[in-house]
Amino acid sequence: MTPFDNAVALQPRPDGTQTGHTSPAYANMVGPFGGITAAQVVQSVLNHPQLLGEPVSLTVNYCAALADGAFTAVARPVRTNRSTQHWTVELQQQGEVVVTATVFTALRRETWRHDEHRMPDVPEPETLTPIPPQNRVAWLDRYEMRLLQGGIPQKWDGSELADSVTRLWVRDQPPRALDHASLTALCDVFFPRVWRRRATPVPAGTVSMTIYYHADGALLRETGDEPLLGQAQAQGFRGGYFDQTAQLWNRHGELLATTHQVVYYKE
Amino acid sequence: MTPFDNAVALQPRPDGTQTGHTSPAYANMVGPFGGITAAQVVQSVLNHPQLLGEPVSLTVNYCAALADGAFTAVARPVRTNRSTQHWTVELQQQGEVVVTATVFTALRRETWRHDEHRMPDVPEPETLTPIPPQNRVAWLDRYEMRLLQGGIPQKWDGSELADSVTRLWVRDQPPRALDHASLTALCDVFFPRVWRRRATPVPAGTVSMTIYYHADGALLRETGDEPLLGQAQAQGFRGGYFDQTAQLWNRHGELLATTHQVVYYKE
Repeated sequence: MTPFDNAVALQPRPDGTQTGHTSPAYANMVGPFGGITAAQVVQSVLNHPQLLGEPVSLTVNYCAALADGAFTAVARPVRTNRSTQHWTVELQQQGEVVVTATVFTALRRETWRHDEHRMPDVPEPETLTPIPPQNRVAWLDRYEMRLLQGGIPQKWDGSELADSVTRLWVRDQPPRALDHASLTALCDVFFPRVWRRRATPVPAGTVSMTIYYHADGALLRETGDEPLLGQAQAQGFRGGYFDQTAQLWNRHGELLATTHQVVYYKE
Repeated sequence: MTPFDNAVALQPRPDGTQTGHTSPAYANMVGPFGGITAAQVVQSVLNHPQLLGEPVSLTVNYCAALADGAFTAVARPVRTNRSTQHWTVELQQQGEVVVTATVFTALRRETWRHDEHRMPDVPEPETLTPIPPQNRVAWLDRYEMRLLQGGIPQKWDGSELADSVTRLWVRDQPPRALDHASLTALCDVFFPRVWRRRATPVPAGTVSMTIYYHADGALLRETGDEPLLGQAQAQGFRGGYFDQTAQLWNRHGELLATTHQVVYYKE
């Protein structure tokens, strides 16, 4: 059992809901790393006895910071078609909703396929040194990151950088075979784009994240515990919110997931 | 009252839900144009007496084709914070869920701002002729479209095209001052990317769409009824689903919305 497996472990209850716990190993500055919360949402669907197929899309909305401790996951299949299924999920604490989510799952079949957004041409992960342990927030040390471009600014001097692009090789630390839950968390490993763009550490927090899973379980198993190439960039910053669009490929250039989020920022 | 205003008109009911109707003016091949359904979802929140702020993000999931006729919109504010609010919305017909959605609204405030994804340099709309009425499906004729790049293939000969990019100027027909509901519908005007990429009219339908609204009401009012520049492109096609990422700018280059969807396709 890796720290990730422990973090996404959920216990079924007689009423059909599931009990989970926030994980100190994935703590962020306030509350848990949003990626691990999203992974817990997906896991609640993957565990469900009525599940049909595999995740194709997820939207998770962070309504409030989770308090350290237990939460209840309420996953409900609201519409089941022949080969597709629509889910709503809520995470609750003390009877209050802290996360809302929708998940779409489907039995996938082979079709014509093509990765139009091609993996950029970058050095292999073995040629780069992983970022050393940060001792800043716990979750950062749950990932092995090898930075290619666009790290956290070294000086918070407010100088505006040319763009908000970050590229890195990333995988779970300790390494762990990829599945839809861990891919979900990996979609949220990018620090706030506004920090990158402005070299100013303004308060920022993800409000909503959407993931489209291009990879089925077979492709994830083939990918195994190899590093993924992640790339993230903002499109617009305005009125207290910016967006981020990101892609994750395996090292063979297969696009595993595309993901988007909208993030609050102050000032 | 334009056809759009008629289509998004919802009547409040004593139990707090709202009644709407599908609109023949926005009919698609099977059921209504997905954009008008998304606009009805947003309108149900905009109408709600407990609304705080303006839309910042929306995810709408199409669980089943809406049948022609009435539907019930159930909009529920699940979490209200000091300046933000999280909503769940369902559209129901005959007691069955046909659409699920989540909406995030907020009181926005002035901050540093920047459009990192810049509007491409394209000819002004006045230099282009609108696409003549199609008489294909009703909703297409509710939009004035001036194509810049990447129209529906003229020959369905299965030749693979270089990319799936479409660029066009677009506005409501008849012209109508922009608001968050009409901007929502405009986010869904792009035909399926798989048709563009493969020159093959395979069956395709949107499963889930997410919109991040960068524009507040003031910017939408400034934009008025001027054409918007829309750009759409797929990132990956695999296992029966592809994604689309799109941007909408006003003619002054202000990024009004970024939007993403995942789409089923056959073969």
